[in-house]
Amino acid sequence: MEKKIPYKIYLEEDELPKMWYNVRADMKNKPAPLLNPGTLKPMTAEELAGVFCDELIQQELDDDTAYIPIPEEIINFYKMYRPSPLVRAYCLEEKLQTPAKIYYKFEGNNTSGSHKLNSAIAQAYYAKKQGLKGVTTETGAGQWGTALSMACAYLGLDCKVYMVKVSYEQKPFRREVMRTYGATVTPSPSDTTEVGRRILAEHPGTTGSLGCAISEAVEAETKLDGYKYVLGSVLNQVLLHQTVIGLETKAALEKYNIKPDMIIGCAGGGSNLGGLVSPFIGEMLRGENQYQIIAVEPASCPSLTRGKFAYDFCDTGKVCPLAKMYTLGSNFIPSANHAGGLRYHGMSPILSQLYHDGYMEARSVEQTAVFEAATQFARVEGILPAPESSHAIRVAIDEAIKCRETGEEKTIVFGLTGTGYFDMVAYGKYNDKEMNDYIPTDEELEKSFSTLPEVNL
Amino acid sequence: MEKKIPYKIYLEEDELPKMWYNVRADMKNKPAPLLNPGTLKPMTAEELAGVFCDELIQQELDDDTAYIPIPEEIINFYKMYRPSPLVRAYCLEEKLQTPAKIYYKFEGNNTSGSHKLNSAIAQAYYAKKQGLKGVTTETGAGQWGTALSMACAYLGLDCKVYMVKVSYEQKPFRREVMRTYGATVTPSPSDTTEVGRRILAEHPGTTGSLGCAISEAVEAETKLDGYKYVLGSVLNQVLLHQTVIGLETKAALEKYNIKPDMIIGCAGGGSNLGGLVSPFIGEMLRGENQYQIIAVEPASCPSLTRGKFAYDFCDTGKVCPLAKMYTLGSNFIPSANHAGGLRYHGMSPILSQLYHDGYMEARSVEQTAVFEAATQFARVEGILPAPESSHAIRVAIDEAIKCRETGEEKTIVFGLTGTGYFDMVAYGKYNDKEMNDYIPTDEELEKSFSTLPEVNL
Repeated sequence: MEKKIPYKIYLEEDELPKMWYNVRADMKNKPAPLLNPGTLKPMTAEELAGVFCDELIQQELDDDTAYIPIPEEIINFYKMYRPSPLVRAYCLEEKLQTPAKIYYKFEGNNTSGSHKLNSAIAQAYYAKKQGLKGVTTETGAGQWGTALSMACAYLGLDCKVYMVKVSYEQKPFRREVMRTYGATVTPSPSDTTEVGRRILAEHPGTTGSLGCAISEAVEAETKLDGYKYVLGSVLNQVLLHQTVIGLETKAALEKYNIKPDMIIGCAGGGSNLGGLVSPFIGEMLRGENQYQIIAVEPASCPSLTRGKFAYDFCDTGKVCPLAKMYTLGSNFIPSANHAGGLRYHGMSPILSQLYHDGYMEARSVEQTAVFEAATQFARVEGILPAPESSHAIRVAIDEAIKCRETGEEKTIVFGLTGTGYFDMVAYGKYNDKEMNDYIPTDEELEKSFSTLPEVNL
Repeated sequence: MEKKIPYKIYLEEDELPKMWYNVRADMKNKPAPLLNPGTLKPMTAEELAGVFCDELIQQELDDDTAYIPIPEEIINFYKMYRPSPLVRAYCLEEKLQTPAKIYYKFEGNNTSGSHKLNSAIAQAYYAKKQGLKGVTTETGAGQWGTALSMACAYLGLDCKVYMVKVSYEQKPFRREVMRTYGATVTPSPSDTTEVGRRILAEHPGTTGSLGCAISEAVEAETKLDGYKYVLGSVLNQVLLHQTVIGLETKAALEKYNIKPDMIIGCAGGGSNLGGLVSPFIGEMLRGENQYQIIAVEPASCPSLTRGKFAYDFCDTGKVCPLAKMYTLGSNFIPSANHAGGLRYHGMSPILSQLYHDGYMEARSVEQTAVFEAATQFARVEGILPAPESSHAIRVAIDEAIKCRETGEEKTIVFGLTGTGYFDMVAYGKYNDKEMNDYIPTDEELEKSFSTLPEVNL
């Protein structure tokens, strides 16, 4: 007999993942290695040690170990806010009059308001274990900075955050949350770093970018004794930590014998999408199962749908390693959109490779349509979603409507990565019908592609 | 053998309350009846029908029925965000090095960010059932208005919110959340009502008060066809709906054989505290058990600790019924403090009677000490608490520290009513050490008491 499926599926403590899943172990085509920006040769562990903690470097470079144990201290921290619920969207289904079954994995039930905490605690833990005093990082919309501040407060580590200036000014409350957790927050570009001063001189009055804040955080780390740099997305290690999302989702589905047909996630740098889909793509790679995997990105920053699969710099200042990824060019500045977490020019090398090899598809959506979906979702499901997450909602609703038309009873799972409490300026613009949709022209993208570095391996 | 107590106790769906508990049924001294502001005679159901829905009036006046079934539609809505977790504050205990065991019932895991949703959905449901078009209400800090907007959006009811002007201006994001849920939000006092125009004429430039917004919302309701007025605290019906908090808490504690020694809650109008403690006080009233119950209020608005137990008006405009309660006088305007939900001049008649009869004690705390507790809690427990909730945290920490000194292993339960995402201005003031503590002088209170109406029943 089929078990009755509750509104929210919560796993018991003993059902929670004890290991992260490293999808690279099952990939035939491994993601391309990071390159040293000076020599354009693959980065060695020794070279990475200038920037990252030792154990995180191991995880970054490990293409072979399928399961990596989660340290007990991290499991204990996870208990503070995990398991996150897998919610059956009964109310949304009814509203849409769809035969589709919709589930969402909700990662917003913690003060950082998003899934970012999953990797923040891991990275902070390894920094602490290595005896460091603190970490430096950048943040755009502020979700990552908040998550890292929380993790550092918990472990007693210092945390220095470079926050993209436009967000620093437009989101004073995000900044205040980080300060409440004891972090130092500096608007970027700043005059506290060489790269910041250079960018300020070249672009007076600039409101900053994520690529620029990364450059500053990396430089700050190299000049401080006892500090390392940490990053909230794109990297292999981050996707690894985030697999706790997908593993929990898979366990919850299996507990009730639910087989999803499609899995949908928003994609900025890839941290949430990669974490959610890795365990499912693992089954595809091993030939055990088949799923439709959909990455959703903003039409204003379409790295998968319109970018090039090429080596590119990860940051604007070109001080970081190069990665082979779908990219719009490291100088690409997306037009103002309200999904600050989806404004990165590149995409996780793992996801880029999987996309290139046909394991997932990608769609781009415009922000007015995204906020329409967000509002519709909020009114029936009760949760006010982050603009980033709402990209996934948009496509989930589109697919559910298709099911209504075809009569198919598909099972749709999407990642609801976070809440929108700090995004009310954006909701206000939508409520006032003042939201713009801007899509870069082919000419703009060509111009941006022309700055891609030439790499001959 | 003692069952292992998880970090978070979640009840299963079939363990959730099916009935609300009406503590009045077990009270020997019933709360005094509401009085008609014109005749100063007890309000009849017929008189109340001008303002409230029929079934809510029944609940308001019912002093005898101990258990009232929760309609299935409300139970279904509750499933969207309930059960709320009862969390063992292991990390806080460790930080405080206390032998006390601390638990908190966390009501902030929904978009309204607080417990207010428990009564909002009930009141909206009965309005819908009665065939109404919509409801009017007031909101101070915005938690109640947000909750009601969510409930109305879900049921397809119109929602008109009068928001205290100072909050409307200082909390534009709260306003935007309500608009996202489809509500109309008007800053109060406004020129849309007679009482608003009168108050504006008498006090030009006033930034409003809750009592004034109540007067406007009630007037608006009487002039609109198909609308009733709803209120988020103070009333007997609200405390009844909020008992879902206490009933869940009790069930979760009993599931693990935990016997609390003390139960602590913040007290503004009494909705959260009353809901949390009612089932426990019921045991005390029936002579089955003994608990230490502590109400915590701001020193700047000390209705229980320094107020008078007397009949008073519930609103500034004196259009609402009078209630017998601990009150500071309906003209009392608390000094600026950041716990907007705890700025009401009076207190629930039920809680007032119970306090008067010795079933609970009360403490007042100053806001700098409250934010110190809030920050300490956030850093170890991960949740950013609302300023209101942090009053309970302050006393829970104080009591846990006492246990450290005496070595007593007391079990402390407190209500964590909500999150502070929309209160970052307040946290900023605390972070910048710009927070003021102001306590009204005896002279100020005497002046305010002199406006209490004379009532001879």
